[in-house]
Amino acid sequence: MLRFQAAQLKPVVSAIFQSVGTPEATADYLADSLVESNLMGHDSHGVIRVPFYVRQIQSGVLVPGARPEIFKETATTAVVSGKWAFGQVTARYGAEVAIAKAQAHNIAAVGLVQLNHVGRLGEFTTMMAKAGMVGIMITAGWRPPIAGVTPYGGMGRAFGTNPYSIAVPAGKHEVVLLDFATTVLAEGKLQVARAKGAPVPLGVVLDKNGQPSTDPNAFYDGGFMLPFANHKGYALSLVADLVAGLLPGADTFMEHDNQTGTLLIALNVDAFRPLTDFAAVVDRRLDEVKAVPPAPGFQEVLIPGEPEARAKAQRQRDGIELPEATWDKIVKTAEGLGLNIAAIAGLA
Amino acid sequence: MLRFQAAQLKPVVSAIFQSVGTPEATADYLADSLVESNLMGHDSHGVIRVPFYVRQIQSGVLVPGARPEIFKETATTAVVSGKWAFGQVTARYGAEVAIAKAQAHNIAAVGLVQLNHVGRLGEFTTMMAKAGMVGIMITAGWRPPIAGVTPYGGMGRAFGTNPYSIAVPAGKHEVVLLDFATTVLAEGKLQVARAKGAPVPLGVVLDKNGQPSTDPNAFYDGGFMLPFANHKGYALSLVADLVAGLLPGADTFMEHDNQTGTLLIALNVDAFRPLTDFAAVVDRRLDEVKAVPPAPGFQEVLIPGEPEARAKAQRQRDGIELPEATWDKIVKTAEGLGLNIAAIAGLA
Repeated sequence: MLRFQAAQLKPVVSAIFQSVGTPEATADYLADSLVESNLMGHDSHGVIRVPFYVRQIQSGVLVPGARPEIFKETATTAVVSGKWAFGQVTARYGAEVAIAKAQAHNIAAVGLVQLNHVGRLGEFTTMMAKAGMVGIMITAGWRPPIAGVTPYGGMGRAFGTNPYSIAVPAGKHEVVLLDFATTVLAEGKLQVARAKGAPVPLGVVLDKNGQPSTDPNAFYDGGFMLPFANHKGYALSLVADLVAGLLPGADTFMEHDNQTGTLLIALNVDAFRPLTDFAAVVDRRLDEVKAVPPAPGFQEVLIPGEPEARAKAQRQRDGIELPEATWDKIVKTAEGLGLNIAAIAGLA
Repeated sequence: MLRFQAAQLKPVVSAIFQSVGTPEATADYLADSLVESNLMGHDSHGVIRVPFYVRQIQSGVLVPGARPEIFKETATTAVVSGKWAFGQVTARYGAEVAIAKAQAHNIAAVGLVQLNHVGRLGEFTTMMAKAGMVGIMITAGWRPPIAGVTPYGGMGRAFGTNPYSIAVPAGKHEVVLLDFATTVLAEGKLQVARAKGAPVPLGVVLDKNGQPSTDPNAFYDGGFMLPFANHKGYALSLVADLVAGLLPGADTFMEHDNQTGTLLIALNVDAFRPLTDFAAVVDRRLDEVKAVPPAPGFQEVLIPGEPEARAKAQRQRDGIELPEATWDKIVKTAEGLGLNIAAIAGLA
C-alpha cells in the first residue's frame, strides 16, 4: 500500500481533469469530492474512479465543461439536465435547486437526467441536511448490458446497484447519514475484493448459472450481483429504477445508452418543528441509541455516518492508503496525458 | 385451520368495533382494511389484531370515535393529529391531505401524531398511487420498553419494526408496491411462528444475551429483533424514528407513552412527465424485469405487490384461512362484549 495526504492527491486529480478540458474550478471540485470519499473510507468512490472518468471524457460520454440546466420546472419540482457533465456537478446543482425550492415552499423534488456517475450520494444529501432539510437521494444506475444486479428470484442483469441516501440534520451529532447500495455489496467493493484476490461472503453474487459463489470473478464472468435482504433490496432497486430513472425521463435521453437518473427530495424541517428544537431531540435520541450495550463481537453501537466521520479524522491525520495497482493506473493515465504526476503530488 | 369468506369476516369485525363505541362507518372501514390485509396474505396485519384493538379501546388508548385534525400546515405540508383514533383512520385522512396538497402543489409531506397502530402501510401508499402520485410512507413504531428491535451491533430494545412503503403507479400492472418492516421479519410474523411453535431462521432474533437464536421465544424472553441487512436496515430504522417520529413531533404527545408517528410524501407524477406516458414506460420496464429467467429454486420473477395481488385473487375465491387460536380469541372478545358472533358470521 502507498500512503498519501489528501492535499497531495487533490492537485493530481485536478491536474488530470484539467488536462482533458475540465475548467479549473470544476476540476478542483471533482478533486475535493473524490478525495473526500477516500477520506471517509469509501475508496470505491474515490480517486480510483479517475482513469474511468478520463476514458469517458476521451470517448465523449462525459463532457467536462458542460453546465447543467433546468429544462422543466414548477414551484416545487424541477428536472435538471446534466448535459453529460460530471455527475457530481449535476448532482450538486440539483441539490442546490432542491434546497432553494424547499426554502421557499418547504418541500421540493428534483430529477436529474443526462447524468453521469454521481459518486457518493451522501455528499449531496448532507448538503441538504446542512441547509436544515431532510435530504433524500435515489439513483438509478446503468441498465443492461452494463447493469449487474439481478431481481430477487431471477438470474439476469436488470439493475445498477441503485443506491439510496437519506441525511437528517442533528445538533452536536451534526448529521445522520444513511448511504447505501441496494446490493449486498457496492460494485466498487466487489472490484476491491477482486483486485485483492479475496473471496466475498455467500449471498453477494450468483455465478452465470444462478448458483451462489464466493468468488468475485463469478460476477465478472457473466454472473449477477444480489440485492440485499432478498425481496426487500430488490423492491428498493426496482423502485429506484422507476422513480429516479423513468420519472425524470432518463430513458428519453439515450445519446450514450445511459439511463442513469436521480431523484432528490428536500424537506424543510422548520415546516414541522423549529430546527433547533428538532436538532436537540435528535441528539437526545442518538445518545439513547449509542447507550445501547454492544452485542457480543462489537465494541459499541455506531450512528449511521459515524464510521465515515471517524475514518475521515483518522485519514486526515495519517493519510490515505491506496493499493499500488490503483496508484499505477492513475500515474499511467497522467503520463498518457503528458503530466508529471510525481512533481504535482510533491513526490519528485 | 378454519376457513372464512371475506364477506363473513367483515360484519364480525364491524360488529365488535361498533359494540365498543366505534361509529358504524368507521367500524365498516376498519373491517375492510383488516380483512384486506388477510386477503393480501398479510395475516399478521389482519383480523388477528381485533382483540388487541378492543383492549386498547377499553383501556382508553384508542378512541374509536375520534376524528383526526390538521393542527399545523403550510401549502405543501401538514401535521395531522389523530386524536388517538384508529391509526388506519388517521393514516387514510393523512393520505387524503397529502394527495390534495400534491394535486395543488405537485409534492406534499404530511406527518401524523397521536397515532395508533396504522396497519398495512401499503393501503395508504396505494391510495396515493391511484391518485397518480408516487406515494411514500414511513412509520416509527413503539419506543422502549415495548420496542423490540436492537440497533445493529447492539443488544437493546430501541426501535419498533419501523416499516417503509413506496407505491408507484403503473398501467396494466396497476401499482408497484414496496411495503416492508426494517426488521428481517415483521413482528406479526414472529408472533405467527411462535403460535405455530415453528423456528425462525438464524439472523432474525438475538436472545437476551445477544446470542443468535432460532427460537421465536428467545425474543419474547427478553431478546431482540434484528434489522435486515445489518447496518442498512438499522439505518432505515433509525431514520424512520427521526423523520416519522420526531420530525412531526410524536414525542410531544405522550399521553399514552406512545411515540408512534408517520411521515407521508406524495409526489405528483404529472410534474415530471404525463401520467399515461409514465405508466406506459413503467409497464414496459416491468415486463422486462419479469422476463428475467428464474434462478434455480424459483418459478419466476415477481414484481413487488404481485404476491399480494395473487394471494388476494386466491383468497377471494377460496376463502381466508385462520388458525383456530386466532378465531377463538376473536370469538372470546365478541362474547365478552355480549355479541353472538356465529350468527353475525352466518355460521349459526
